[in-house]
Amino acid sequence: MGLKDNDRAEIEALRAETRPTLRAVSEGMEAHLYHAHEVLDHGFVRVVDYMGDDAAICQAARVSYGRGTKSVQNDEGLIRYLMRHWHSTPFEMCEIKLHVKLPVFVARQWIRHRTANVNEYSGRYSILDREFYIPSAEHLAAQSVVNNQGRGEALTGEEAARVLDWLKADSTRAYDHYEAMISQDGQQGLARELARMNLPANIYTQWYWKVDLHNLFHFLRLRADAHAQYEIRVYAEAICEIVKDWVPAAYAAFEDYRLGSVQLSGKGVACLKRMLAGEEVTQEGSGMSKGEWREFREVWG
Amino acid sequence: MGLKDNDRAEIEALRAETRPTLRAVSEGMEAHLYHAHEVLDHGFVRVVDYMGDDAAICQAARVSYGRGTKSVQNDEGLIRYLMRHWHSTPFEMCEIKLHVKLPVFVARQWIRHRTANVNEYSGRYSILDREFYIPSAEHLAAQSVVNNQGRGEALTGEEAARVLDWLKADSTRAYDHYEAMISQDGQQGLARELARMNLPANIYTQWYWKVDLHNLFHFLRLRADAHAQYEIRVYAEAICEIVKDWVPAAYAAFEDYRLGSVQLSGKGVACLKRMLAGEEVTQEGSGMSKGEWREFREVWG
Amino acid sequence: MGLKDNDRAEIEALRAETRPTLRAVSEGMEAHLYHAHEVLDHGFVRVVDYMGDDAAICQAARVSYGRGTKSVQNDEGLIRYLMRHWHSTPFEMCEIKLHVKLPVFVARQWIRHRTANVNEYSGRYSILDREFYIPSAEHLAAQSVVNNQGRGEALTGEEAARVLDWLKADSTRAYDHYEAMISQDGQQGLARELARMNLPANIYTQWYWKVDLHNLFHFLRLRADAHAQYEIRVYAEAICEIVKDWVPAAYAAFEDYRLGSVQLSGKGVACLKRMLAGEEVTQEGSGMSKGEWREFREVWG
Amino acid sequence: MGLKDNDRAEIEALRAETRPTLRAVSEGMEAHLYHAHEVLDHGFVRVVDYMGDDAAICQAARVSYGRGTKSVQNDEGLIRYLMRHWHSTPFEMCEIKLHVKLPVFVARQWIRHRTANVNEYSGRYSILDREFYIPSAEHLAAQSVVNNQGRGEALTGEEAARVLDWLKADSTRAYDHYEAMISQDGQQGLARELARMNLPANIYTQWYWKVDLHNLFHFLRLRADAHAQYEIRVYAEAICEIVKDWVPAAYAAFEDYRLGSVQLSGKGVACLKRMLAGEEVTQEGSGMSKGEWREFREVWG
Repeated sequence: MGLKDNDRAEIEALRAETRPTLRAVSEGMEAHLYHAHEVLDHGFVRVVDYMGDDAAICQAARVSYGRGTKSVQNDEGLIRYLMRHWHSTPFEMCEIKLHVKLPVFVARQWIRHRTANVNEYSGRYSILDREFYIPSAEHLAAQSVVNNQGRGEALTGEEAARVLDWLKADSTRAYDHYEAMISQDGQQGLARELARMNLPANIYTQWYWKVDLHNLFHFLRLRADAHAQYEIRVYAEAICEIVKDWVPAAYAAFEDYRLGSVQLSGKGVACLKRMLAGEEVTQEGSGMSKGEWREFREVWG
Repeated sequence: MGLKDNDRAEIEALRAETRPTLRAVSEGMEAHLYHAHEVLDHGFVRVVDYMGDDAAICQAARVSYGRGTKSVQNDEGLIRYLMRHWHSTPFEMCEIKLHVKLPVFVARQWIRHRTANVNEYSGRYSILDREFYIPSAEHLAAQSVVNNQGRGEALTGEEAARVLDWLKADSTRAYDHYEAMISQDGQQGLARELARMNLPANIYTQWYWKVDLHNLFHFLRLRADAHAQYEIRVYAEAICEIVKDWVPAAYAAFEDYRLGSVQLSGKGVACLKRMLAGEEVTQEGSGMSKGEWREFREVWG
Repeated sequence: MGLKDNDRAEIEALRAETRPTLRAVSEGMEAHLYHAHEVLDHGFVRVVDYMGDDAAICQAARVSYGRGTKSVQNDEGLIRYLMRHWHSTPFEMCEIKLHVKLPVFVARQWIRHRTANVNEYSGRYSILDREFYIPSAEHLAAQSVVNNQGRGEALTGEEAARVLDWLKADSTRAYDHYEAMISQDGQQGLARELARMNLPANIYTQWYWKVDLHNLFHFLRLRADAHAQYEIRVYAEAICEIVKDWVPAAYAAFEDYRLGSVQLSGKGVACLKRMLAGEEVTQEGSGMSKGEWREFREVWG
Repeated sequence: MGLKDNDRAEIEALRAETRPTLRAVSEGMEAHLYHAHEVLDHGFVRVVDYMGDDAAICQAARVSYGRGTKSVQNDEGLIRYLMRHWHSTPFEMCEIKLHVKLPVFVARQWIRHRTANVNEYSGRYSILDREFYIPSAEHLAAQSVVNNQGRGEALTGEEAARVLDWLKADSTRAYDHYEAMISQDGQQGLARELARMNLPANIYTQWYWKVDLHNLFHFLRLRADAHAQYEIRVYAEAICEIVKDWVPAAYAAFEDYRLGSVQLSGKGVACLKRMLAGEEVTQEGSGMSKGEWREFREVWG
């Protein structure tokens, strides 16, 4: 993975020393702090800081003076109620700051979520590392034949080998030239802000990303979804594991009301009611398009 | 002030117990945590939580693995550089959560700053307290005669007494009727969401307000300014004192580059250059309007 | 309603003159432009400007050079697809600017939607009008006995009369004193920014509110909902009628996938599947709390 | 440039037909609508839609019923006042929608401005075009020797030739392999969402970008600045020319109070006052760091 020895040493140093605080502390999150959870071939997700816990959500919802905890059971019920009724502001009262290393094409998808704070490693100012994402064999997928925006089975045989060769060779050559262009050894050296344009989208970048829990849940709902691109989904899944330990009650409500939920259209509600009444419903009689009907049947059989 | 005994007890309980954390800790901020800093006659500002410190700003700017601190001096220089050149994203990496009690007319001004998270005490759900802002004698100011949007000298004598009497009597009567309308004693009781409409804008409300340091500085620059309405300025000033202890280097840079700064227009720069060259410049020759020229002279004499 | 004669004259003048434009034009929306749709006793909603139409949503989704319209049918299908799969950014490409007159307590709820642009009439700078919301008899509702955050049946008899008397008398007196305090007739006159604090929350204010279609739909979903407070719901409903004429295809998709939709939790999905299989499901066997089960039964019987 | 014949035909069709509207119309902007202003070697900026004009800014600031225009002179004065005193909300009442074609490394910088709406051409769904940014000789700059984040003189001779050769050859090869990987001719074909990772950051992408005038001014202040990277600055400059014709009064105020302005720190103000009083001030006596002093002298000599 993409950690160097001195990076590891810095992380160890941070994990070695606790300090007293009066703030809300999530024990589950303290165990994650600073650890680099590996994702893809050189990427990671590290929790750098966090604010709040399950009780803090309830405390804000009640605008209370103390921790707001009457009992853990009460808090869970309140959290489920808030999630169910789209009361999003109490969840905004928790905040997380992550250090993420990720391929540029994943970063470009990720950044579409605008309600977050970002500091990215600067290719104008600094020299980028020679680290590229090369998919493992089972993730070298073919274009989907049913979905313009998805992927199908893994490539095999010569085709797979050829693709891997190109991805590796082109990355290597692009980085060799990047290095040679910025070199100031016997030449002026091209500006870094220009030289970086030669680097492909599978190069790794890194950033600090800070977001509140409500917006994080929105990100996770879209990116941990089965239709999300695999390379961003694995980041979302790694973050899900972290959030589960940070705010267990909120995460459980998120799983039930968002991740595992189904949104029924007005037409879908009408169809289900007819089916519950014993009626046989067909696409023609559903009022839905073929695409909608296919998605409806995927859930309801 | 507006704290009840059980509020004080809850605050004391929170201040009594520290817990270990691996996160960045600001000693200066720990001393403020939970304390209610009194503002106006019944209001307060309390820090409920915070994330980050001066070093966290530098750590994010450098996208580093450790604390990012090479030396305090380096960090201060970097922070001043970031502030001077409007690199705002590293400041967004610090976050503060406040519990604020404030009159509704102040809350209405405050909420115009949209990049923040808010949970307000709900007058639909709960019964509001009988607490109203009544200005002290020296802040019972007349309308400004030079500025449509400002205030002049304090009212005096009978006029002042009459105003105070009205403010007190109208608040009291409005609240009496509010209570009588929602009472379920021998009657149905008006819905709270309706009854609250009888309450004047000097009633106190409270909220949890969470904001990142960059947006907080923006709020403070506008609201701690001499032209801001006194009743919101005192909140901004109380927060300034807190931020000074939380992130001393960032606050010092903010004071120098924002609070104490002067923005010169292109015309203003041209005038100052002529004045530095020994020329006498008049409004007519400045290219500025009368208003601009007056503001320019206020600074440069 | 709250329009004065010169306001009407200004509106008429604007409606009298068309000008040629190369931009996308929505005929349905042109018919609404500037008209004041009355809401409550003195309020209104007026469309001041708009950007885009149904075709503009598709044009942005396709990042196309022309109007993006292949056929109206294609556009409708694409719009339904985008709405169903939460592709929100194409809907952000339409924008609406409204002039709204509304009671302050409604404005305070409205402003909680932060992703919008607002210019409110300033009580620091200007003198507010003597206009207060007084509920009609059938909307003078009692507190709900089952829902802390709702209302029940209308008050009747003496209780209703007493409430109306108080609301009217207190508003009148508060405004009389407001006027007397700011008067500069024989006295200094209290600053407007202070005097306004005596005014109750049923006084009318007005603002320009500009928002993109995606965020407007989010607002409408929450505020046109049966659980929203009546006094804001009527504004949302008036806006729904406008949006229906502006972007008919997008509004139809919104009605089907949002307004008329049902969100099922993971537990709800499991229950429905068992019910479809002919099983009798009870609250105890559902895994849901009593509140969730009640809400589930309200939809599915 | 990157327009194909059918793109041109679509643009011509849109420009051929005007329709009547009741909305505010900016004549200067109508002349720009849909035209593709060329930027760099294959990029462009096209205005797709706009909302509002100078008068609309004043209308919102006054929350007025009509156009808000008392006289052009009054409007200009009000606009200058609003800009000078950071009253940003009236400027948010104007909106612009652009279609931009730009290299990916420019897009990555651009997107850091989060308060905007974006629809980007999807490399998951569609096949990207074979178009790459290759700098012209005079913009093939060396790394700056004084500024880590800037560029110096243009490269010359063999070094320049070598860089250009690499940029061209690597782009061509990367695209050849991209095409070969996604080809379904005699093979499965790699998923587009994966194949795109082989493409370098100088490939062109395109997007619809919609933003309000206040946030656009913020973007322009940072990106039309002399310290911005050349490749994004040329886009900002092209947009400046458009905005100048759209809202001439607002743009003039922006030029004077933002683009051409100087922000003086508290220390800078103190120094200038001493200099105005005839004193000779040195870095040591200024309280400024060397960097600050250099920047101060650049302006004040």
